[in-house]
Amino acid sequence: MSLSGVRALAFDVFGTVVDWRSTIIEEGGRLNREKGLDVDWAAFADAWREEYRPSMDRVRRGELPWTKLDDLHRASLEKLLDEFGVEGLNDAEKERLNRVWHRLKPWPDAVEGLKRLRRRYILATLSNGNVALLVNMAKRAGLPWDCVLSAELARRYKPDREVYLMAAELLGLKAGEVGMVAAHAEDLLAARQAGLRTVFVPRPLEFGPGGAAEAPDPSFDMVVEDLTDLARRLGL
Amino acid sequence: MSLSGVRALAFDVFGTVVDWRSTIIEEGGRLNREKGLDVDWAAFADAWREEYRPSMDRVRRGELPWTKLDDLHRASLEKLLDEFGVEGLNDAEKERLNRVWHRLKPWPDAVEGLKRLRRRYILATLSNGNVALLVNMAKRAGLPWDCVLSAELARRYKPDREVYLMAAELLGLKAGEVGMVAAHAEDLLAARQAGLRTVFVPRPLEFGPGGAAEAPDPSFDMVVEDLTDLARRLGL
Repeated sequence: MSLSGVRALAFDVFGTVVDWRSTIIEEGGRLNREKGLDVDWAAFADAWREEYRPSMDRVRRGELPWTKLDDLHRASLEKLLDEFGVEGLNDAEKERLNRVWHRLKPWPDAVEGLKRLRRRYILATLSNGNVALLVNMAKRAGLPWDCVLSAELARRYKPDREVYLMAAELLGLKAGEVGMVAAHAEDLLAARQAGLRTVFVPRPLEFGPGGAAEAPDPSFDMVVEDLTDLARRLGL
Repeated sequence: MSLSGVRALAFDVFGTVVDWRSTIIEEGGRLNREKGLDVDWAAFADAWREEYRPSMDRVRRGELPWTKLDDLHRASLEKLLDEFGVEGLNDAEKERLNRVWHRLKPWPDAVEGLKRLRRRYILATLSNGNVALLVNMAKRAGLPWDCVLSAELARRYKPDREVYLMAAELLGLKAGEVGMVAAHAEDLLAARQAGLRTVFVPRPLEFGPGGAAEAPDPSFDMVVEDLTDLARRLGL
């Protein structure tokens, strides 16, 4: 288990670095009180996240032209507000709710782990979130990225191979000099096929207390407990 | 003189934030001693910089396909080593010299000014330097960017309009919500034509003690002394 030769770490963000579910539940609870709503925000968060993959897949298959994640999230939001029977939100309120994805809170180990990892490695995002989303999130949460890289820059969504290759190219590195860090096996398997190294960080609470935990694949270069554990194992 | 409504500041880098000339002279002097050379590195730095614009213009006019700045710098370097009669550098030594552009040192006010500006604004580079160059430079010099944006992402060089519009688009802002900060009038005039706001920072020593100082244009939104002065005038 080592990352010898790796110069940069590229991080998946949703679920790996930030806890989308808890943040949506927390902000949604506040919206319930403000607007006199009675929405089950845990169910809403899960449903919103469930729309994520099929909406990107429509872009990946070419059924939709390139559409950034903010806009896919907004289309899903409109659908879910209807399905959950939420009424009385004006456009500005819907837009504010949609931008909860810009305000997601980091897992408790994330900021400290990243700060320690940054001493030796170039730290980049490599997320399907659009650049503005990732920049706003980082500024708010104090995530110390050296570089914000996004599927938006390749106009392709992960797990398309081009996204991983773009990250190495923009960082001026060979694919094998970049380590992809993610809580999702599919992301890491695609990164590995593109020649990147791989670090699996389990996030058993990503989908809530009863959610399904992902298992690591034997091919991964490292499996760690969380981002401070990764720093510790790398001697940082 | 104000920047009301501006949410992000986009910085030209070479000359505006970092002092390319002094860094090349300093590193070149070291190379003279190490390799027993007798190069006039001030003249070399000036000549290297003079190749910059025509080399990018060949890309801008479509005479060359997209070529990142590292590679344009390297082609100019080969030419100048020949012109200056420098012999005895192997490929690794040339590559290390070429990457002096990744190691440029900030002007004395830059790091403090940026740290203060970052309290209120999103800070991005908007440079013709490629992403890896800008990331390596920032990490080394402690430049606290929220986001590294580069001509490389648009595959067009400034002052092409598309580069400025790309910055606003990627930051999720209107052009008028982005302020371009530069020491070069041409850059700011092009930014202004694309709808950005403009801040001129004179750098009278950019081209050395006898170099030509650029004058501000009356159309610029702000003219400041340096980046700490900009922070001060914005109440930061």
